[in-house]
Amino acid sequence: ATSSSKRYNITLLPGDGIGPEVVSVAKNVLTLAGSQQGIEFEFREMPVGGAALDLVGVPLPDETLSVAKQSDAILLGAIGGYKWDNNEKHLKPETGLLQLRAGLGVFANLRPATVLPQLVDSSTLKKEVAEGVDLMVVRELTGGIYFGQPRGFGKNEKGEEIGFNTEVYATYEIDRIARVAFETARKRRGKLCSVDKANVLEASMLWRKRVTMMASHYPDVELTHMYVDNAAMQLIRDPKQFDTIVTNNIFGDILSDEASMLTGSIGMLPSACLGESGPGLFEPIHGSAPDIAGQDKANPLATVLSVAMLLRYGLQEENAARTIENAVLETLNKGFRTGDIFSTGKKLLGCKEIGEEVMKSVGSQE
Amino acid sequence: ATSSSKRYNITLLPGDGIGPEVVSVAKNVLTLAGSQQGIEFEFREMPVGGAALDLVGVPLPDETLSVAKQSDAILLGAIGGYKWDNNEKHLKPETGLLQLRAGLGVFANLRPATVLPQLVDSSTLKKEVAEGVDLMVVRELTGGIYFGQPRGFGKNEKGEEIGFNTEVYATYEIDRIARVAFETARKRRGKLCSVDKANVLEASMLWRKRVTMMASHYPDVELTHMYVDNAAMQLIRDPKQFDTIVTNNIFGDILSDEASMLTGSIGMLPSACLGESGPGLFEPIHGSAPDIAGQDKANPLATVLSVAMLLRYGLQEENAARTIENAVLETLNKGFRTGDIFSTGKKLLGCKEIGEEVMKSVGSQE
Ligand SMILES: CC(C)[C@H](C(=O)O)[C@@H](O)C(=O)O
Ligand SMILES: CC(C)[C@H](C(=O)O)[C@@H](O)C(=O)O
Repeated sequence: ATSSSKRYNITLLPGDGIGPEVVSVAKNVLTLAGSQQGIEFEFREMPVGGAALDLVGVPLPDETLSVAKQSDAILLGAIGGYKWDNNEKHLKPETGLLQLRAGLGVFANLRPATVLPQLVDSSTLKKEVAEGVDLMVVRELTGGIYFGQPRGFGKNEKGEEIGFNTEVYATYEIDRIARVAFETARKRRGKLCSVDKANVLEASMLWRKRVTMMASHYPDVELTHMYVDNAAMQLIRDPKQFDTIVTNNIFGDILSDEASMLTGSIGMLPSACLGESGPGLFEPIHGSAPDIAGQDKANPLATVLSVAMLLRYGLQEENAARTIENAVLETLNKGFRTGDIFSTGKKLLGCKEIGEEVMKSVGSQE
Repeated sequence: ATSSSKRYNITLLPGDGIGPEVVSVAKNVLTLAGSQQGIEFEFREMPVGGAALDLVGVPLPDETLSVAKQSDAILLGAIGGYKWDNNEKHLKPETGLLQLRAGLGVFANLRPATVLPQLVDSSTLKKEVAEGVDLMVVRELTGGIYFGQPRGFGKNEKGEEIGFNTEVYATYEIDRIARVAFETARKRRGKLCSVDKANVLEASMLWRKRVTMMASHYPDVELTHMYVDNAAMQLIRDPKQFDTIVTNNIFGDILSDEASMLTGSIGMLPSACLGESGPGLFEPIHGSAPDIAGQDKANPLATVLSVAMLLRYGLQEENAARTIENAVLETLNKGFRTGDIFSTGKKLLGCKEIGEEVMKSVGSQE
């Protein structure tokens, strides 16, 4: 490294199931792509989710959060597994993830759903419907019904047990996610579709009002509105109509997973969680896949592409991000596949092996 | 009609857009299929939605609700249109629909999504994924975030505007929809999948607990649970894995529309809204399609099939229901299609004409 070299602190949160395997591959790719640009990384690995429960009895140890907060970016593998499925709420791996998002203040979840030409056949959609799909869901991540108060259990007038949650949004929460969405759309194809249920919900009416107000600052972005039920249909009828979608936490949870599955290759999809300031959190959208954990079968490419998002959105290192994305495409072009995206005539590789192919391709771009 | 003939009072709510056209066809089919079984109908047509707004200034006039309540079953066309889109909430056509559901106490919404062999090519899914799909979404319709209190607008501690809604379920609400769902699954293939977000929401935790308890009364039904985000994915990945799905109001809104669109022919899909006692409400799942209203282009078959559901679930007249369903299939088998389900080689008909073909086919089954 030269004296002009940059250094970043990266927190690695491998988590559960296949998390450690895919994070290990992605870490190596990040290190190599960085070194080509004179970037050095210092990694610190911390427990989260089930791994943290087993180790220290809570799904997000204080130290994990404080190390993460002090770093420049965070790479998460996956969390959860059968073992902890029946835990009480505060001892669920998922609770650790929600605490991490809230603790980091990462209110904007960027989830691309892209159908790569190499993988168009993986989609359950007809080829002509799937090919060319390239959309981005911008999901609000630290508000709404996931965090709204009051919540809990109680009794109604008749003395019957009730369970309740509050869907609530304040103007500042809507404004800041709208801003991220407009900025995102501006850098893409300039189309933003805001999804809500403003024909029924007050929280959605305020959402629509504020998003509409924000549009005046982005005259170059075309804003449309769609009800969530219609959006769930339109994603299947004609996904290519979408460029950028912005929506609340719970609708975003549902629609971004629906959009991912349209591509047929969720083992390929990364995500970024960003806040106002402070480090971003980057993770593959797939789960911890406990059934194939430790068998070197997992597809690490979603995590590798998450590292590309980490470089682009977390560290503003566009060159290294591009290098990694190109390497993934080249690896696919050479016919290498993991089991989840395998088709006849292609070359089946394990998690480590396909990682090595990506490394070769990164290396060859020097 | 013989002295043993039965008489039913049916409330017709044609509503807006294509509503009147499709209801008119379905009414004729109902009359004919009924007469073959010695059933007579008395129809009373009442305004709802935009039509009621234009006529008397409210989306659900008191008289419409009271006539509906006193009848044996209600057939609704569709509501809404651009004209009323910017109305205040209490003057929206949608509000009339919600008031109607609440007023009738129809808490169970049955929404089949079936891919007919004749129309498998209409789906945007690959043929092997779409063919044979035959699922039923049982959606809770009068509770949850649609009706939960408190709701509205206010200020937070910092004085910022907020919009809020309450997702709330009481045990009795969950129990009664669970019962309908288990009964439905029992009459189908004996598989029930309950969809919730119990890893995050207290309202869903209570939902899961009560549905699980209800399962002990239905040992012949296989109960599974799925998170809503995963359900949105699985519907696309492999919709045939589902038989009956039960879920809350808002998740049901989203997932039932997603499931409908999988079939590619939402102009064919009926629905039923049922209460504990009192008349059921039957309607096609499609909207009012204002752009083709009054042009005799609408597909009336979803409304015709809604009339079959009205006979089966509303009046327990299984024979007449079957006659109508067979007539619709025969009409398709003869190659007749409206524009929305047209493909080359088929015969394109208008709304009235395809209605007449269904009538012929009903007649020929006498
Ligand atoms: C695990 C769960 C709490 C989480 C969510 O609902 O946000 C997950 O589904 C996701 O989308 O990241
Ligand atoms: C029009 C709207 C209020 C309604 C709903 O959300 O229930 C509709 O989408 C439906 O599914 O019947």
